[in-house]
Amino acid sequence: MVPHLATALTGPLLDLEEKILAATPAIERWFRLEWQEHTPPFYCSVDMRNAGYKLAPVDTNLFPGGFHNLATEMLPLSVQAGMAAIDKYCPDARNLLVIPELHTRNPHYLQNVARLMQIFRQTGLHVRLGSLSPDITQPTPLALPDGNMLVIEPLVRSANGRRLGLKDFDPCTILLNNDLSAGIPDILQNIHEQSLLPPLHAGWALRRKSNHFAAYDEVAKKFGKLIGVDPWMLNPFYAKCGAVDLMSGEGEECLVASVDALLAKIRKKYKEYGIKDQKPFVIIKPDAGTYGAGIMTIKDASEIKDLSPAQRAKMTVVKDGKAVTDIIIQEGVPTFESIKDAVAEPVVYMIDRYVVGGFYRVHAEKGIDQNLNAPGSQYVPLAFAQQHAIPDLKAKPGTAAPNRFYVYGVVARLALLAASLEMERTDPNPEVY
Amino acid sequence: MVPHLATALTGPLLDLEEKILAATPAIERWFRLEWQEHTPPFYCSVDMRNAGYKLAPVDTNLFPGGFHNLATEMLPLSVQAGMAAIDKYCPDARNLLVIPELHTRNPHYLQNVARLMQIFRQTGLHVRLGSLSPDITQPTPLALPDGNMLVIEPLVRSANGRRLGLKDFDPCTILLNNDLSAGIPDILQNIHEQSLLPPLHAGWALRRKSNHFAAYDEVAKKFGKLIGVDPWMLNPFYAKCGAVDLMSGEGEECLVASVDALLAKIRKKYKEYGIKDQKPFVIIKPDAGTYGAGIMTIKDASEIKDLSPAQRAKMTVVKDGKAVTDIIIQEGVPTFESIKDAVAEPVVYMIDRYVVGGFYRVHAEKGIDQNLNAPGSQYVPLAFAQQHAIPDLKAKPGTAAPNRFYVYGVVARLALLAASLEMERTDPNPEVY
Repeated sequence: MVPHLATALTGPLLDLEEKILAATPAIERWFRLEWQEHTPPFYCSVDMRNAGYKLAPVDTNLFPGGFHNLATEMLPLSVQAGMAAIDKYCPDARNLLVIPELHTRNPHYLQNVARLMQIFRQTGLHVRLGSLSPDITQPTPLALPDGNMLVIEPLVRSANGRRLGLKDFDPCTILLNNDLSAGIPDILQNIHEQSLLPPLHAGWALRRKSNHFAAYDEVAKKFGKLIGVDPWMLNPFYAKCGAVDLMSGEGEECLVASVDALLAKIRKKYKEYGIKDQKPFVIIKPDAGTYGAGIMTIKDASEIKDLSPAQRAKMTVVKDGKAVTDIIIQEGVPTFESIKDAVAEPVVYMIDRYVVGGFYRVHAEKGIDQNLNAPGSQYVPLAFAQQHAIPDLKAKPGTAAPNRFYVYGVVARLALLAASLEMERTDPNPEVY
Repeated sequence: MVPHLATALTGPLLDLEEKILAATPAIERWFRLEWQEHTPPFYCSVDMRNAGYKLAPVDTNLFPGGFHNLATEMLPLSVQAGMAAIDKYCPDARNLLVIPELHTRNPHYLQNVARLMQIFRQTGLHVRLGSLSPDITQPTPLALPDGNMLVIEPLVRSANGRRLGLKDFDPCTILLNNDLSAGIPDILQNIHEQSLLPPLHAGWALRRKSNHFAAYDEVAKKFGKLIGVDPWMLNPFYAKCGAVDLMSGEGEECLVASVDALLAKIRKKYKEYGIKDQKPFVIIKPDAGTYGAGIMTIKDASEIKDLSPAQRAKMTVVKDGKAVTDIIIQEGVPTFESIKDAVAEPVVYMIDRYVVGGFYRVHAEKGIDQNLNAPGSQYVPLAFAQQHAIPDLKAKPGTAAPNRFYVYGVVARLALLAASLEMERTDPNPEVY
């Protein structure tokens, strides 16, 4: 189930939305059966784009920040889902160790950490923070913008080396909120007695977007069949180029050819569905990495040859200095939602298999075909829609507001399911899990 | 977890409430472990009384009506909990058969049924209604107050007699919303292939309040030890008299003696805790049965001898004509909550092990020591408290509104756990489940 949230969009439901709403019982049962076979990621956020003619996830984050951007009224949903998740891994857990990102001086990120701690305390856990930073050698206070304090402590391996914890704090479950872009630190290696969630191969040190979208292809195909729509309505085309170095020009032909081929495929679909007011474009981004770094909108393959040295340099450096090697080229999905004239994209949050809330990422200075995860973006929490809490198909026409956000929750869960398949298939030690 | 709802009470937290809030992680873990051992009832509502010095469940309903009285913003919690519940009994279920009470012409009750159908459709089930009434021989429309329609259909046993359903509708799970006060109909007997929820012995044909409160005694004792409070703070004293017939006077001595003994025990507790502004009283009610029928407030054992024939007759008839035989005498817990000068008692709803909402039952014409489940009662849904969605003990004093409703959710779940023990112990066919 998906909370009934107010959406920015208030026009009539589109064909895809109507099909999804009408198929609700079949869709929920399908998810229920899929979750019998596959374990959902512990938590996840999905960036989405609604183009009107298509609705697609564009980024699936397995170390979601931004929990503080969810409406506070929705927190009970997070706690309830957190209970279900903890129950699965460690029902008798007393302690939860959270390992955050290194930039714990960022007040926004700190609020996210505080919110996560609040949620998991309420599920019945003592929650403490451990740092991957060598600079944290003793319990260190971190001031929150509201005047409260968090304390972050140095990580400690147990005397026998088998467990990870803090001084006088032995957790059953370790929750990573650090996406490991900088690589997998030694202190996280060889933890077999405790649940490390998400697993190490979910981190950007090992994870590749192309694996995710390969799994998503399958999920979208199955789901398209279930509700009788072209999977393209839910799925952006993509391609991948290995070993690209734009500084030296290595691999650039692959990129040019792939962009050309992808634009041709999109044009064909636009023609098929009579989409005339939108010019095809693609997004190129590193196959590993996050934070919206090195992401570029391309409308013609010739733009690649014309990239300035500065732009090339930008594409070559991702978070924490990891160099770009593989590049993913993804069909661009324009957003046709806006809040007060600023383009907006919905971001949906999940814990275990449950949608627990969402918000709009809004950027006043970006276009409908640009990445909004960039400096200057703002967050508008989605609160419960006042009129009707859940869609009611039996209601007489005109008496119930149909729930557009339900549809977003369905598509976000398709990405969640794809992440689950992706994690299974890329698991370096399948027997451990 | 318990949704953070606004409560009618806004004074400072009482000692018991503070202890419960402070022990949140330990309490939630304790519940988590208890639910490893015991299966919660499918759904449940608990009537509670908050006397300030004590907070206690007074009635645990295993066939809750009134789901339409929950705030609509809270429905996603019900759906999420419903998903967890269905997953447990019948993960591949397509169909859910709901069997409502016979009084389906009552517009309030019908709204409850409609709300239940809405919740379970959203969990991914096709939901249809089957009637225990012999008058329903074909699909029959039932008009809802909002102009929508429900359809109720005759129940059908399968050709081989092993399954229960409707014409062309074979459910995996059958949800009873009929408390079986009138006895167990033949058509519900010997269903072994499908999940019949709650089980037949949860119905008033077999269930006894005294079994519930015996289990609750144990739960309250364990919980009192966990958080370091006298279990009496959470638990009303009770006693039981078998085979009472007030019309003939049979068993009246037991009643008088028990009322005397219980009032003496309460007086002793009042003295221990310095409670001076409240006069002890007891509630006598049938050991089987619901709907607030045959419930009486007694302040002195002599009142029993003085009962008029009309009052005696009232005590002898319960719902659907079932005669009173066993009587339970329960410590009266006054309510010190009120909404606009009318006395109010919180009612908390749960699905599976999750608190999904609540409301206040309010009665303008009743006293603080009377049963409010009587004609003239009104329902005030509890919506999410606006200021803070979950209690935050780390917040600086004065920055977070403490969550009184969390405490209600904890005590309601103690009753839920007691119901679970009660169902285990009274199961006539333990091997079937």
